[in-house]
Amino acid sequence: MQDAIAKLQEKGNAAKSASRRLAHLSTDTKNQALLNISEGLIKRQKEIIEQNHLDLEEAKASGMSTPMLDRLLLNQSRIESIAQDIGTVASFPDPVGETFDMKTLPNGLQIGKRRVPLGVIGAIYESRPNVTVDISSLCLKSGNAIILRGGKEAIRSNMALVGVIRDAISEAGVPGGAVQFVDSPERELVNYMLKMRDTIDLLIPRGGPGLINMVRENAMMPVITGGVGVCHTYVDRTADLSKAVAIVYNAKVQRPTVCNALDTVLVHRDVAEGFLPILAQEWARASVEMHCDERAMAILKAIPSISFVPASSEDWGKEFLALVAAVKVVDSLDEAIEHIERYGSGHSEAIITEDYSSAMRFLDMVDAACVYVNASTRFTDGGQFGLGAEVGISTQKLHARGPMGLKELTTYKWIIFGSGQVRS
Amino acid sequence: MQDAIAKLQEKGNAAKSASRRLAHLSTDTKNQALLNISEGLIKRQKEIIEQNHLDLEEAKASGMSTPMLDRLLLNQSRIESIAQDIGTVASFPDPVGETFDMKTLPNGLQIGKRRVPLGVIGAIYESRPNVTVDISSLCLKSGNAIILRGGKEAIRSNMALVGVIRDAISEAGVPGGAVQFVDSPERELVNYMLKMRDTIDLLIPRGGPGLINMVRENAMMPVITGGVGVCHTYVDRTADLSKAVAIVYNAKVQRPTVCNALDTVLVHRDVAEGFLPILAQEWARASVEMHCDERAMAILKAIPSISFVPASSEDWGKEFLALVAAVKVVDSLDEAIEHIERYGSGHSEAIITEDYSSAMRFLDMVDAACVYVNASTRFTDGGQFGLGAEVGISTQKLHARGPMGLKELTTYKWIIFGSGQVRS
Repeated sequence: MQDAIAKLQEKGNAAKSASRRLAHLSTDTKNQALLNISEGLIKRQKEIIEQNHLDLEEAKASGMSTPMLDRLLLNQSRIESIAQDIGTVASFPDPVGETFDMKTLPNGLQIGKRRVPLGVIGAIYESRPNVTVDISSLCLKSGNAIILRGGKEAIRSNMALVGVIRDAISEAGVPGGAVQFVDSPERELVNYMLKMRDTIDLLIPRGGPGLINMVRENAMMPVITGGVGVCHTYVDRTADLSKAVAIVYNAKVQRPTVCNALDTVLVHRDVAEGFLPILAQEWARASVEMHCDERAMAILKAIPSISFVPASSEDWGKEFLALVAAVKVVDSLDEAIEHIERYGSGHSEAIITEDYSSAMRFLDMVDAACVYVNASTRFTDGGQFGLGAEVGISTQKLHARGPMGLKELTTYKWIIFGSGQVRS
Repeated sequence: MQDAIAKLQEKGNAAKSASRRLAHLSTDTKNQALLNISEGLIKRQKEIIEQNHLDLEEAKASGMSTPMLDRLLLNQSRIESIAQDIGTVASFPDPVGETFDMKTLPNGLQIGKRRVPLGVIGAIYESRPNVTVDISSLCLKSGNAIILRGGKEAIRSNMALVGVIRDAISEAGVPGGAVQFVDSPERELVNYMLKMRDTIDLLIPRGGPGLINMVRENAMMPVITGGVGVCHTYVDRTADLSKAVAIVYNAKVQRPTVCNALDTVLVHRDVAEGFLPILAQEWARASVEMHCDERAMAILKAIPSISFVPASSEDWGKEFLALVAAVKVVDSLDEAIEHIERYGSGHSEAIITEDYSSAMRFLDMVDAACVYVNASTRFTDGGQFGLGAEVGISTQKLHARGPMGLKELTTYKWIIFGSGQVRS
């Protein structure tokens, strides 16, 4: 164990030392490195897929569930898609070096901010091997070094990917220390990583609530957490019901396993009778299981073809990540806002309304990373928001909120140009 | 103890509930509350000074040092100055509600960010009672509720100040829960506060390194730390020596007890003989004690009237907070940059040079909140930087770096205006 810790600290030191050089790399060098990674992944996909097979076989033998196995899988089309995403990151503007908020003070000092990398990012994540490439390429473009700690179920896939990345970046003249991978399986290494405050400037956990809470409670450096999305859509008294059905259907069905998918639909009592039967019929086509409160049940039980179950108290505030939705009838906009305040996770919330004041009140009062009027919460995504790729979706309030792209992986320093000024 | 914890949790709940209303107060109401506080402090200064006397007497009896007693003291002129600062905060623009980065996506979604308060700020601080008023007024203006935990040596002064604040804000129609003060002396309350993750959105510790480290290691919510400034000024080979003497003198002497004061001066070997004797004579007039490396001693011992002591290894990277400075001769700009990288605390660093490339290289390579060319590090201050007042100076990289004013006490939410968009 002492050996593994010493090795981890060495990797940390190498990342820190590399980060100083990364901060000053030219945009061309960083883009060349990204294009090399993209090319390398395609060229060496056989080797990657072989290692991924070994991970998959072991995972199957250990009884991993089918959706989890699917998340672990790398095949030709997935590798091509990952390679293409890297090309997109290369095409983004370089966030580093931008000078902004420049002003001249009355004493003649010229003062402003310059965007700089954070330094060393730590990432602790589970199963999906594409995270290895996504985070590495975003960190590289933003001038940060990265220490990756992937799950042991994907260790061979991750090591193959990191092998490609390291060869590709060193060919482009990027310091090899820029991408570090923790390959020892010991759990204690994660505990040690959480204490590497002098090395890691920001820690990003990606995975289930267990991992995220553990990191948040024990990390000694800043952490950005997210990924848990309990998302509501409120159908207001004045909603255009055809828009409402289309949006609520999309928010639940288009991709139910992700954090920005709808979990609870709240419906104003005045439109519940008009809206719920149509929604239920649409959702039935997609086999969505409805967990209804009593008023919703009273409306739906009049329709013979529709099946539903009574909601239990755990259904409110639950992230289903499946074709299941909670349904509640509310008396007013304010009741909807209060429900969201109590049960939401601060991720993405929407109102469907034709009333201007209701729309504005919802935008004002709901405290979440993303608040929508008349659109699907499924849009909460770095790519959709025009940030390019994302390292995650922050549901905390400090530094970055919502989708985190390249700019969110930077900080700034104040730069001050003087001509001999002293303070009196 | 259970009682005190229950009471703290009640205060937390009250702050959280108040924060929801604070987020939507009009600028006028907030400014009226600030002006009421300012007036109240002047009107009730007798009561405040009386309570402060009791704190001072107890502190004297317990053997508090003279500089600490001075920090604890409130007298008429200090109260007037505090009252005036609140008026200044009232005159600042309201940061809340600003909409920015608005754009229209190809699918017609209009998307942007709106500045909103963080929610509930926790402050844990020592001795200086003016912090009670400073942080309360900045939080109020930025729409945040505040939970204050001052030191027990200032408890009577703080309670008198909080009494004035609470009366003043409730007169203006601000919810009384907005300003909470933890008046029980038990240390365990601080430990409990560090765990109130569901209540406190940001914790700001202000005090010595012991307090700051304790908070950073144990808090479960985001923390912004700062206040420790190990500040260097490097006098380059091409420095204008008269500017250099004036700046280095100012950085050390103008107010030696604060975090942006100079700790170490680094001098290029080519100008050390010209610069150090003049600096030493200037500093001698202000009784600055010089802790010199061997090369600096070799130069200074030729001058009979100058006294100095040899630097020990602990002098590098030490925040003196007194009329003491470390002095080192270096061979090059890069040696100075390396020294700063190793020993600096990421606060404020300066170069004195007439060489354009040296200035740019120093700005590029030094990783600190504030990097200066040809000016005194003493300018690192929210007021000096034109931010108005400050809640502190952050030396971490996330969220805010350097002086933290009103804007740094806010976050944003994404607001999205749709017309029925769904994701395909």
